[in-house]
Amino acid sequence: MKQYLKHDAWKVIEDSFHPEFNEITESIFSLGNGRMGQRANFEESYTGKTLQGNYVAGVYYPDKTRVGWWKNGYPEYFAKVLNAANWIGIDIEIEGVKVDLNQASIHEFYRELNMKEGYLLRTCEITLSNNKRLKIKSIRFNSMADDESGAISYSITPVNFSGSIQLKAYIDGDIQNKDSNYQEKFWDQVKVEAQGNRSFVWSKTKKTHFEVITGQEVHIYQNGQKVHVQAQSETREKYSVLSYQVDVIENEPITLFKYAINLSSENHPTTDFEIALSQYLTKIASKGFDQMLQEQALAWAEKWNSNDIVIEGDVAAQQGIRFNIFQLNQTYTGKDDRLNIGPKGFTGEKYGGSTYWDTEAYCIPFYLSTAPSQVAKNLLIYRWKQLDKAIENAQKLGFDQGAALYPMVTMNGEECHNEWEITFEEIHRNGAIAYAIKDYVQYTDDKRHLLDYGWDVLLAIARFWKQRVNWSENLQKYVMLGVTGPNEYENNVNNNWYTNYLAAWCLSYVQEVHQEITQLYPNETSIKLEKSQFKVEELVEFEHIVQHMHYPRDEKRGIYLQQDGFLDKIIAPVDQIPAQQRPINQHWSWDRILRSCYIKQADVLQGMYFFESDFSLDEIERNYSFYEPLTVHESSLSPCVHSILAAKLGKEDKSYEFYTRAARLDLDDYNNDTEDGCHITSMAGTWMSIIKGFAGQSVQNNQLHLAPFLPKQWKSYRFKINFRNDHLEIEVNQAGVKVQNLAGHASEIVIHDKKLHVAANSTVVI
Amino acid sequence: MKQYLKHDAWKVIEDSFHPEFNEITESIFSLGNGRMGQRANFEESYTGKTLQGNYVAGVYYPDKTRVGWWKNGYPEYFAKVLNAANWIGIDIEIEGVKVDLNQASIHEFYRELNMKEGYLLRTCEITLSNNKRLKIKSIRFNSMADDESGAISYSITPVNFSGSIQLKAYIDGDIQNKDSNYQEKFWDQVKVEAQGNRSFVWSKTKKTHFEVITGQEVHIYQNGQKVHVQAQSETREKYSVLSYQVDVIENEPITLFKYAINLSSENHPTTDFEIALSQYLTKIASKGFDQMLQEQALAWAEKWNSNDIVIEGDVAAQQGIRFNIFQLNQTYTGKDDRLNIGPKGFTGEKYGGSTYWDTEAYCIPFYLSTAPSQVAKNLLIYRWKQLDKAIENAQKLGFDQGAALYPMVTMNGEECHNEWEITFEEIHRNGAIAYAIKDYVQYTDDKRHLLDYGWDVLLAIARFWKQRVNWSENLQKYVMLGVTGPNEYENNVNNNWYTNYLAAWCLSYVQEVHQEITQLYPNETSIKLEKSQFKVEELVEFEHIVQHMHYPRDEKRGIYLQQDGFLDKIIAPVDQIPAQQRPINQHWSWDRILRSCYIKQADVLQGMYFFESDFSLDEIERNYSFYEPLTVHESSLSPCVHSILAAKLGKEDKSYEFYTRAARLDLDDYNNDTEDGCHITSMAGTWMSIIKGFAGQSVQNNQLHLAPFLPKQWKSYRFKINFRNDHLEIEVNQAGVKVQNLAGHASEIVIHDKKLHVAANSTVVI
Repeated sequence: MKQYLKHDAWKVIEDSFHPEFNEITESIFSLGNGRMGQRANFEESYTGKTLQGNYVAGVYYPDKTRVGWWKNGYPEYFAKVLNAANWIGIDIEIEGVKVDLNQASIHEFYRELNMKEGYLLRTCEITLSNNKRLKIKSIRFNSMADDESGAISYSITPVNFSGSIQLKAYIDGDIQNKDSNYQEKFWDQVKVEAQGNRSFVWSKTKKTHFEVITGQEVHIYQNGQKVHVQAQSETREKYSVLSYQVDVIENEPITLFKYAINLSSENHPTTDFEIALSQYLTKIASKGFDQMLQEQALAWAEKWNSNDIVIEGDVAAQQGIRFNIFQLNQTYTGKDDRLNIGPKGFTGEKYGGSTYWDTEAYCIPFYLSTAPSQVAKNLLIYRWKQLDKAIENAQKLGFDQGAALYPMVTMNGEECHNEWEITFEEIHRNGAIAYAIKDYVQYTDDKRHLLDYGWDVLLAIARFWKQRVNWSENLQKYVMLGVTGPNEYENNVNNNWYTNYLAAWCLSYVQEVHQEITQLYPNETSIKLEKSQFKVEELVEFEHIVQHMHYPRDEKRGIYLQQDGFLDKIIAPVDQIPAQQRPINQHWSWDRILRSCYIKQADVLQGMYFFESDFSLDEIERNYSFYEPLTVHESSLSPCVHSILAAKLGKEDKSYEFYTRAARLDLDDYNNDTEDGCHITSMAGTWMSIIKGFAGQSVQNNQLHLAPFLPKQWKSYRFKINFRNDHLEIEVNQAGVKVQNLAGHASEIVIHDKKLHVAANSTVVI
Repeated sequence: MKQYLKHDAWKVIEDSFHPEFNEITESIFSLGNGRMGQRANFEESYTGKTLQGNYVAGVYYPDKTRVGWWKNGYPEYFAKVLNAANWIGIDIEIEGVKVDLNQASIHEFYRELNMKEGYLLRTCEITLSNNKRLKIKSIRFNSMADDESGAISYSITPVNFSGSIQLKAYIDGDIQNKDSNYQEKFWDQVKVEAQGNRSFVWSKTKKTHFEVITGQEVHIYQNGQKVHVQAQSETREKYSVLSYQVDVIENEPITLFKYAINLSSENHPTTDFEIALSQYLTKIASKGFDQMLQEQALAWAEKWNSNDIVIEGDVAAQQGIRFNIFQLNQTYTGKDDRLNIGPKGFTGEKYGGSTYWDTEAYCIPFYLSTAPSQVAKNLLIYRWKQLDKAIENAQKLGFDQGAALYPMVTMNGEECHNEWEITFEEIHRNGAIAYAIKDYVQYTDDKRHLLDYGWDVLLAIARFWKQRVNWSENLQKYVMLGVTGPNEYENNVNNNWYTNYLAAWCLSYVQEVHQEITQLYPNETSIKLEKSQFKVEELVEFEHIVQHMHYPRDEKRGIYLQQDGFLDKIIAPVDQIPAQQRPINQHWSWDRILRSCYIKQADVLQGMYFFESDFSLDEIERNYSFYEPLTVHESSLSPCVHSILAAKLGKEDKSYEFYTRAARLDLDDYNNDTEDGCHITSMAGTWMSIIKGFAGQSVQNNQLHLAPFLPKQWKSYRFKINFRNDHLEIEVNQAGVKVQNLAGHASEIVIHDKKLHVAANSTVVI
């Protein structure tokens, strides 16, 4: 745990330079706009510890798989997040000495991630080895308004000299992925050019042939006046640069404005690349940096207006939740149904692929509640568009007749993972994808979605479950053998309760959806059914499985068993593990972990969270009391689910404790791995801890429910909810709950099981 | 299956060149003498398909582990079989054209592995692109008498020309391992030299610093007369060569004799390397090729005298069994307790490491029966010497107090494998190592071995089992969770019956051994016990486990279950799998294999084979009838065990069928993988099929038992048995069984449960 960053309600602040943590800071201060993003690298040269990272959404590279021992069914290639051209580069040289914070003496340093307005600010005062003392101030952002662009204002003020300095603004496309199996470079050059005050690097990925043109336009200002200095332009392989030699006067700042564009062949025909680039540069440069920055602040104000959670009485918690919401919005804006929420977003390239079950299980609720419904819908359409690939994936494993197994990790629908116990066995992901459809429809009431997209996916998933279970003559039940549940500290188990339950639920839900769309859209449905070669007998088979699924259970304790034979283990609570052996995944052999009773993340309890209303409070209590003490929470996705269940069970302190574990995970580098990037998807879990945990939000019978409590560490918290047509602001404080109806019509909400009418534009306090 | 090799009782013959199978032939025709060995590469240049392979026993390289995803406990480096300097090289050039069978026209070609006398012969007649027609005849062997040497006689006869030819005899140490994780070269040069008619390459492995000096001495003869031609000697990095320009006359053969030596730093101080090399070369060159070849034939005659199995009436079977016996003797001679029986011997470098549980479970019986007892004993001492490493290995996985887990694959005692489901879980290997001690002592009556070596190993293994089981409150039994049995088509199962049974047996046997050595060697034992920090209470704990071990069982069928929950699978016999889907490991996804009921190799039945006398015939019959039909035999170790059990159950045809699957595995390239090398360890299984299967050999109550039958395809078979002081020749033919006592004292043997007295040097027929 590190605490070098300052607490502030709206900013993340590093007020003196910590080169030892620089890669962590680069992750935390990352910028993004859903379309492109980057780590918080310095613009100028830096020879200290750094991971240069620039990313363009949707552009990936199928790296050759690396395994110890090949197993049939592994993908031969899989998609890696691609580190793309570096467009922020500005080298500064003064009388032969390069500016480099790793070489200079640093007198002052300040770095700020301004979450309210969406920019990165840095100021510092340094002395170079030739005794030139100068101040640097840079402001940078990835524009939300013009989301294929970014801009930098980079000012230098000579403190103890007048003279000549050289500024070299460059684009560097000669990038080596950190995450590469065989240390290959993934980009080829198409064209480079530098002319006037513009330059570009046009690159193409190997194999996949994605093309990206990255261009810049540069303006130099001195004392608020534009300087008309001729750039010396130069190119080399995958690199273009504009160099300026400028005379500077002591204490008079000189500012380089850099406008940059990333256009991808995913969004632009490459035949128009150069023209489009040129037009885009003209457009943003003519707006100018200040106007762009204003538009950025406006765009973020709009986001915050719907997304913010205001916490009174705890700045660290306030900063934590805003940081999570900020990063989620930087990563995914919901405009493009080909994109998804990468586990590291634009903050690093670790973990191939961009899409995990995290999206459906953790992120959908956040976007449902805080964004127009199209945003969550696009995440569902993303999977619908990849259905064919999911069917192919299932075929590779031996399934047929339209059964789909969505990949564990993916970018384009193909599997991006190759541990058999995960890739082939952690199949509960299929269930989460179905669950998200229910979640979306329940929240939005968009039933049409079931016909247009939902049915196809649900049927293919149901067909998979049907083939994946088998009838056990022995048990006279359906069993599901050889799976890995959400608790990845068990592999290849039989009858993981969560997976069996989820599979049976899918097989029920597809029947329900069949009935619903048949009633609502009879003609369209019959065309749809024919297209999917659906036979009514399939529903009968599905129902037979639902009725005869095996659920491992311990009657004595009144709990479900995580899997067959779980109770044959030695059952001892986590607190008996010596502290120096935690986390166990860093101290114990895999063998020992597997044989132990210790649980990585919610497994049976994930099911109880998903299907809360299927179980009595007592039942949830019994399972929670059995499993939570065995859980090491070594996945960033674990605490939130436990926080929500603890809240439900009235264990407010426990609920709060889980929340705090999650909220500042990256800000405090809790797991010592933030240098690789931030844990983006688990940030949605943090949001859920407050909204679904503390505030107890749920949808039941088409109605919004809340069951809020106020953690005793806080004075109050406040947030907005969009639910269907309703628009409410909820404040929970020591006096009670205040519900403000922001919509022009009366709304109904259930609070602690009591229906509450709130008139249009009015407030009710209870 | 390929049948291009001719059937012959004593030879393996390729009588016309099959370049498409050349890598297979190279494996099959491999030579070795237990100390060094090589694939059957051509001496001269060959640009066609070939895998150059020369190996020096005991020399390995710790290659950096390659995995997809790291798990705690994996070894960071592991030992690879090292491809070493090529000493057979003789380049021939005639008027600027190199001899290369891939470029020349081939008129005649003949290659023979002479198993009786232990050499490789090749003759061919070819025409080069410059129309020079010539005959080549080469004879090569790795000397059994001088086992750090080999020799080649390489003759050329010009058929249609007289003129000058160039012969370049070289040593090439610039070798790239085929099996290398990161395509690195593993050898550095120490020194190269070429002078007079000798040259050498002295190399050192990276990291491990093994040194090997490989030298040659060359003589040229023409028409039976030594030619005094000056060699032009030359060296370059890791390479030395002696070039001879010789005038040849039409139809007069010229012969190059090459004497070669491999000295390893494992056996010689490197300070004496050059002197030792020089002396050794002098010794063998002064013997001369013909005498060396005679000595080779003598050494092999001696081997065959004790090892041979003579089969009348089936040349293919005769060739098959001799090939297996030949390769086993080439691979391991038992002289050196630091060496073991590599799965590919000297025939290829696939699979890192040299030692698997194959040694104890399959090879020990072969060497016990056919070689002096020291040979098998050395294999046991090998493990004893690696006990500390096995204890370290267990510590890495979290075990303590002297518990040992022998590695799955090893060279120097360290683990050489990194699939968690094998490395961490396939722990039954520990039991096989204990079993081999019992096997050895039972066969040889060498009880002293238990004190000197056995106890240490058995106690450490017992301590491992004690910690590896856990008490299940649920079952009120000891269980063993998370294991992989011999059937590797199941991973991470609970309570694999075989492993549980074997573990309990170990825990019993260690008590028996404790009692035995305490009685026989009370003083030495008490010193020993103190040294191993043994407490008598340990035996009580061991016995408690023995008494309360959980054995999964199906009462209805009266069978043991391979593991908990086995009957939840769909049980359908192998013959229901469509032929085009076999072998399933090439056609099915790993997922499908794991979930299926199909068994790779004997698992429950391996236990019934090991502990035959613990079970009634009926019980064996029931288990055999249940499991064999589910077994795909996709391990080369599978058929032999089934052959033996089938014989025991009177299923003679079935027994014979399994034998034939194993016996010609490599000769017919049954599994399409002989090009990587031969399946050395399974060859011992083939031997067992005849001796323990057809002949029903076993040791019971200190007596040798036989229960022979004659496969109806054969006229007779005949073999010798060394058992303690007895020395018998057994012939099984249509008339019955003939037992010849070759020893100078009367012997007793039990045949079909009837005791038989055989007087000294006499024969009994029954």
